[in-house]
Amino acid sequence: MRDVAVVGVGITKFGELWKDSFRDIFVEASLKAIENSGVDHIDSMYIGTMSSGLFVGQEHVGAVMADYLGVAPIPATRVESACASGGAAFRSAFFEVASGHSDIVLAGGVEKMTDGADVTEALATAADQEYEVYHGITFPGLYAMIARSYMHDYKTTREQLAAVAVKNHKNGSMNPNAQFRSPITLEQVMKSTMVANPLRLLDCSPVSDGGAAVILASLDVAKKLKRPFIKIKASSQSSDTIALHSRESLTSLKCVSVAAEKVFKQAKLKPKDISFAEVHDCFTIAEVVVTEDLGFFEKGKGGEAAEKGMTAIDGKIPINTSGGLKSKGHPVGATGIAQIIECYEQLTGQSGERQVKKAKYGLAQNMGGSGASCIIHILEAV
Amino acid sequence: MRDVAVVGVGITKFGELWKDSFRDIFVEASLKAIENSGVDHIDSMYIGTMSSGLFVGQEHVGAVMADYLGVAPIPATRVESACASGGAAFRSAFFEVASGHSDIVLAGGVEKMTDGADVTEALATAADQEYEVYHGITFPGLYAMIARSYMHDYKTTREQLAAVAVKNHKNGSMNPNAQFRSPITLEQVMKSTMVANPLRLLDCSPVSDGGAAVILASLDVAKKLKRPFIKIKASSQSSDTIALHSRESLTSLKCVSVAAEKVFKQAKLKPKDISFAEVHDCFTIAEVVVTEDLGFFEKGKGGEAAEKGMTAIDGKIPINTSGGLKSKGHPVGATGIAQIIECYEQLTGQSGERQVKKAKYGLAQNMGGSGASCIIHILEAV
Repeated sequence: MRDVAVVGVGITKFGELWKDSFRDIFVEASLKAIENSGVDHIDSMYIGTMSSGLFVGQEHVGAVMADYLGVAPIPATRVESACASGGAAFRSAFFEVASGHSDIVLAGGVEKMTDGADVTEALATAADQEYEVYHGITFPGLYAMIARSYMHDYKTTREQLAAVAVKNHKNGSMNPNAQFRSPITLEQVMKSTMVANPLRLLDCSPVSDGGAAVILASLDVAKKLKRPFIKIKASSQSSDTIALHSRESLTSLKCVSVAAEKVFKQAKLKPKDISFAEVHDCFTIAEVVVTEDLGFFEKGKGGEAAEKGMTAIDGKIPINTSGGLKSKGHPVGATGIAQIIECYEQLTGQSGERQVKKAKYGLAQNMGGSGASCIIHILEAV
Repeated sequence: MRDVAVVGVGITKFGELWKDSFRDIFVEASLKAIENSGVDHIDSMYIGTMSSGLFVGQEHVGAVMADYLGVAPIPATRVESACASGGAAFRSAFFEVASGHSDIVLAGGVEKMTDGADVTEALATAADQEYEVYHGITFPGLYAMIARSYMHDYKTTREQLAAVAVKNHKNGSMNPNAQFRSPITLEQVMKSTMVANPLRLLDCSPVSDGGAAVILASLDVAKKLKRPFIKIKASSQSSDTIALHSRESLTSLKCVSVAAEKVFKQAKLKPKDISFAEVHDCFTIAEVVVTEDLGFFEKGKGGEAAEKGMTAIDGKIPINTSGGLKSKGHPVGATGIAQIIECYEQLTGQSGERQVKKAKYGLAQNMGGSGASCIIHILEAV
């Protein structure tokens, strides 16, 4: 396999983008990425989208986007892995460049969730339709069960979960593209509307529209562009049972620990070598569990770590410097690519007041469903 | 890029599979492919599915299928390119093995279309939602416009279109997995119910359930298995405008001619070197146009070629020896993989009474929408 670089990025504002259509959003992010990288063409592209059929009545997303971006007749393919669709699109683009088949590939992600579809029902298609959704459960309920089980086993407090949301909103307040740029207090989280006990409104990532795109290229191309670039150090992916009730444990996400073991082995690195990480905080409890399963903290210590500021931008291991899904927003197909963009900006020193000092290795962890799939990339500054 | 082989195949019967669920169908095909190849594990898998969200309320298809196939925690990703989703999954698997990241990858395709969804509406999401579908057109109408324009320009007769259906039903009658195993006459096609003038019921591929899977492996692995295998000689993909009204021509599919030029160049072969081809005959007119745009016949001569038997199993260039989408059935996500399976069986001499003599190179052409995407593979006997 040959080395692959990320040579440019583009992202839209995340939020309720009433004036922009599904295709508008993707095109805006992609044009920015192409301009940012300085490439004069792309050989092909992959687009992560979770459920455009249900959200906006449009499948065949690759062809639609190639057409509206004005790059037809290049190959364009949609990749889906629920909320990890963006990560999956990035991984597919990585393989195409690594194989030598193509030199310059765009990996994007997009979702338009606010156009009238039943969002909770559409998102529920990421769970087991036959054994979970049919019986009425949706994602806040699934993650609430994880949270209750976790709080029981590890004596983690409600305040510790809330600390994750407070930290991510603080980070998001410094991110110009974030959906929510308002810092929040612990008290606000604790008093927000109950969604699924113990998870409250401010424990949950929002419904968002948004698009994100990055340009991958061979190292030869990257060097010729004479612009900032980073290297893809390792890529891993893992699956687990689609239904929560089939798992050995509710308090550990096996898809994360398995993918983490593989990605660190491939990169020849350990969790302590990572400078910062973007992780899949669809709910506050998810960030707590994931940071443990990635090996940043001992099992049961993730909540305490957030509370003590160990995951803040100036902490031991900064987590979700972008604001995470919680504050930046979670247009599901775009999330995995937005994580890569935060890594790119951090590793090329372009994060402004969110900048992590001496950032060498960034990790992006993107997850689907209640943890039935996980995709991890380690990115390296050059 | 390293060489990649197809080392085993598995397919379900295509048709109205009332007793089998979406996941059952995929698992059946995949278990057959794994057994057929003799591999003791798979490193990862890709699944082509067009619109499982609309058809059966299930996205996150990769994770669902890895779980039910019993292969979690391996990576599993769903790939979508409308009716070319199977071809796209095969291409993704090809890149992963070619890159050296994995040695053994399963590429499958599946669709469950008969479970109560509005099939015509779901299929229409492969067209332009904003500028075509919104105004009420569906796929029979789009292909009928292509047919009318083509018949006007090239004086092709209704009988010539019908000859395609007659030939494909004859081939399908010899395929034990085909949905329709009944030979039909020219008169039956000509008198069948009008669907969208000039296309009649027997010009149209059916609504089908079905699954198909193949195992790709590095050449080293393929040789060690000591079972029949074939080589992937070349892979290409192309896109075009999503809407028919934006095209320069209605009578030629640019996505096919562009992808064909690339694939022949990559393979260092010409159309005359191909022993047989599986092409995307979603409607009879599609087979006529595609066989021309692939370079097998001069423009305007595809209908005459079918009428004269040049595309029959013993003809100049056998087309759709499997029965094609028309007779074998068209569970959309599975179709591209089923084409590869026909190539595998022909090139390893396992096609029984459908066997093409001295088959050396097989071509599989899979298409999405009204030709907004096209994926072509050339397979080689070893």
